[in-house]
Amino acid sequence: MAYYFKRTIESTFNEAIIRIKAALQKEGFGIITEIDIRETFRKKLEEDFQPYTILGACNPAFAFKALGMENKIGTMLPCNVIVQETSPGTIEIAVVNPVVSMQAVANKSLEKMAEEVGSKLRQALDNA
Amino acid sequence: MAYYFKRTIESTFNEAIIRIKAALQKEGFGIITEIDIRETFRKKLEEDFQPYTILGACNPAFAFKALGMENKIGTMLPCNVIVQETSPGTIEIAVVNPVVSMQAVANKSLEKMAEEVGSKLRQALDNA
Repeated sequence: MAYYFKRTIESTFNEAIIRIKAALQKEGFGIITEIDIRETFRKKLEEDFQPYTILGACNPAFAFKALGMENKIGTMLPCNVIVQETSPGTIEIAVVNPVVSMQAVANKSLEKMAEEVGSKLRQALDNA
Repeated sequence: MAYYFKRTIESTFNEAIIRIKAALQKEGFGIITEIDIRETFRKKLEEDFQPYTILGACNPAFAFKALGMENKIGTMLPCNVIVQETSPGTIEIAVVNPVVSMQAVANKSLEKMAEEVGSKLRQALDNA
C-alpha cells in the first residue's frame, strides 16, 4: 500500500492551496501548520526548489480520540498534505495515508480510525 | 522496533520545552511548527487535556536531501517531538523514530538517512 494518495490539477499554486484547504475544511480538518518548504530552503540553505508547501491537517475530534487510544501518537500528527508545482500551471497534491504511516503502532482501534481519517483525506483530495 | 524514543525528566512543562529545543538546535534541528494540543482541544472541543505540545523539528540540509531522494516524503516531515506533563513536575519527552515511520517508503538511501536523523534526535533527547 502506498504511503500517500495523490492527484494532479491544472491551477496556479496559490489557487490549489485554497482549493485543498476548502475541501479539507468540508471534511472536518482545520489547517494547524503550514510550512513553505521553498522559502525555508531559500533562507536556510540558499537553495532553489519548486513551490512546495506542507499543510498540517487536523480533525480535533479524531485527534482527541486517537490520543486517548495511543498517547504517543502525537509523534505522527497532524496529517500532512503536500502541494507542489511540478511544472508551470500543474499542481500535484498528495495526502498522507494514515493507515500506512501508523502501521508500526500496532494498535487495532487506532488502525480502524486511521482508515476513516484516510478516507476523509482522500475525499478532500478528490473534491479539491 | 518502537515508533518513538522517550525520556522522562523532572522539570516544569515550559522549562522542558526550552531544554529540548536547545538540545535539538545543537544537533542542527530548527523548530518549524509548534502545536499546543491542550489549547487546541480546549478551544475546538471544550475538552480538558494535560499540557501536550508537538514540536516539528527540521534539519534543512537533511530535508533538502530527503526530498531529492523521495519527492513525497514531505507527507512525513518535519520530525515530531512531543512534550507532555504526565504528572505535576514530571515531563515526558518523546521523539519520533524516523526509521520506523519511513519503513513503508521502501527507499534504501532514505532509510540510511533516517537512521542518521534518528540518532541525532536521540542524542538531543539524551542531552535535554
